[in-house]
Amino acid sequence: MSKIATMQWLEQGVLVLLDQRVLPHEIRFVQCTTAGQTAEAIATMTVRGAPAIGAAAAYGLALTAWHYPSHQPDDLRAALNESARVLENARPTAINLKWAIQRILRRADASNIDVSLLRATILAEAHAIANEDIQTNKAIGMHALDILPPQAITFIHHCNTGSLATVDYGTALGIIRTAHEYGRKVMVYVDETRPRLQGARLTAWELEQMGIAYKIITDGASGHVMKNYHIDAVVVGCDRVAANGDTANKIGTYNLALAAAAHGVPFYVACPTSTIDLNAPDGSTIPIEERPAEEITHIEGRRICPQGAQVYNPAFDVTPAKWITAMITEHGVCRPPFKKSLREAVLTGSRTK
Amino acid sequence: MSKIATMQWLEQGVLVLLDQRVLPHEIRFVQCTTAGQTAEAIATMTVRGAPAIGAAAAYGLALTAWHYPSHQPDDLRAALNESARVLENARPTAINLKWAIQRILRRADASNIDVSLLRATILAEAHAIANEDIQTNKAIGMHALDILPPQAITFIHHCNTGSLATVDYGTALGIIRTAHEYGRKVMVYVDETRPRLQGARLTAWELEQMGIAYKIITDGASGHVMKNYHIDAVVVGCDRVAANGDTANKIGTYNLALAAAAHGVPFYVACPTSTIDLNAPDGSTIPIEERPAEEITHIEGRRICPQGAQVYNPAFDVTPAKWITAMITEHGVCRPPFKKSLREAVLTGSRTK
Repeated sequence: MSKIATMQWLEQGVLVLLDQRVLPHEIRFVQCTTAGQTAEAIATMTVRGAPAIGAAAAYGLALTAWHYPSHQPDDLRAALNESARVLENARPTAINLKWAIQRILRRADASNIDVSLLRATILAEAHAIANEDIQTNKAIGMHALDILPPQAITFIHHCNTGSLATVDYGTALGIIRTAHEYGRKVMVYVDETRPRLQGARLTAWELEQMGIAYKIITDGASGHVMKNYHIDAVVVGCDRVAANGDTANKIGTYNLALAAAAHGVPFYVACPTSTIDLNAPDGSTIPIEERPAEEITHIEGRRICPQGAQVYNPAFDVTPAKWITAMITEHGVCRPPFKKSLREAVLTGSRTK
Repeated sequence: MSKIATMQWLEQGVLVLLDQRVLPHEIRFVQCTTAGQTAEAIATMTVRGAPAIGAAAAYGLALTAWHYPSHQPDDLRAALNESARVLENARPTAINLKWAIQRILRRADASNIDVSLLRATILAEAHAIANEDIQTNKAIGMHALDILPPQAITFIHHCNTGSLATVDYGTALGIIRTAHEYGRKVMVYVDETRPRLQGARLTAWELEQMGIAYKIITDGASGHVMKNYHIDAVVVGCDRVAANGDTANKIGTYNLALAAAAHGVPFYVACPTSTIDLNAPDGSTIPIEERPAEEITHIEGRRICPQGAQVYNPAFDVTPAKWITAMITEHGVCRPPFKKSLREAVLTGSRTK
């Protein structure tokens, strides 16, 4: 784990979340003791990043179980279902949320035992989701090493996909970190990632702590950077990947993919299989969250545009599979046709490299 | 002229500039009485936009002439050359600066008369540059009407190219304004345009005043918008256009052009011939200004990233001519091959549509 954990389960039945809204200016924590509070933390992006909100939701259900007053397993299951509904509605796009919740509910349904054992089972499953996330990220990093240049690597990275966006280690930023830890000379152009500036605020902060060289750029500068400097790879995370490889990720990812394609720069998606939604045939079926206007009209509490300005603020976009070079899962590197390789990664965990 | 003029020459030899750094929160003016102060206003982006800084530089030379103490025309010409050097160095990319300065200097060189007449000649030439700019912009707007849809038009626009970026009326925003004034139903997606947010701060303010419908989007959202909504045209301005059509414009323009190309959306550059540099064979010869890190690290005076964060802040990018559908000049619409059509527009003013 990092020195500062994104999320931490206290034995008193408290979920402690690092408040990502105030980083890097301030290290502040938010405590949740109910699923509702956890859902609120997810909705307000106190905790964010597809893998992180999945694990947070699992712990949110564990909170319901931990504090549940009755001795009837069926009552607890009903309470879990209600908590699941609240947590699932916190944010619509990242499938990890639903994936983690379903995993907990399946475990609860399969355990026809007393409440205290059911409670322990659910907490164990939440811990398992969290621990597996770290292993998944490290595996993604190792698989990426195989397809990245052997010495110096210059990346462009979008949003934040590091320790903060996951339980630990990171997905796309985990790839960068692995390359750095294995002695490659790494340099990262960091998309600042408007509107919430996760790149400038969070990714820069993580890279700074890891001692990895980086430069923050505006999101509009990536094409210019690719045209004027040698870029080895674009690496991004994902919030939901359809069965055909269409990938929902933080707004701005699609423009970045188009620029990469125009310059022949490999475009890699770091993709835990928990983010693949085989029930979504293609990107058109992925719901795209629209977030409050204030994310665009205000920065750090200050208005930057005229009073009454109209905005359109989609939180995600969908990059069609044809612009993606490869998806790097914990089971290996998936290449086109993604419909086949992603399915194999999800269903068999077989290496489809 | 707009109710609030971008620049105004007072008969007391004072150039009054609307301070664009504090819009839309505050209407504040900066007074210049020397070319040095004018150069400073250009460098700090108190006045900005390629046509506007060209006209401001012309007035900067008029300030030197107006306040010049000696009676020797040759001494004044030497002083003008010195002022020209200072003004030209204020910003490197927009060719309009050099174009306007050269135009004033040529007029000064050709006038072998006494100082008071020379002074009047130079001021008249500065006024001519300013007035022609407005006529140029209106002509660009009219030519654009010919190639835009006849009823409803939805645009994407980058940076600010309106009254504020010109002496008045605007280039790309002038096109939008013309369409609106001629009864077309206009809607504009406004790139906020990081780092200086000219879209969110200035373009939204101008559109609001004109009663034109708009929505501010982040720069990374343009591809998503084109994929999900019908967009009729992208319109942008330019800071320097090479002989082959490669176009330097505000950072983010190139990414926008790539997204437009991917969606078959026409990409139009509003291009006064004063912005065409036939001496630049292609975009690789256009100097790209890098601006202070603080433009990215701070917004409205507040730091948004970790202390010591490294940034790369190019103020412009170059969009290769192959991604540009047409350049709309005051003499008509130039189509590929631009090497021929732009040359004709500059040298003969002939309509090359």
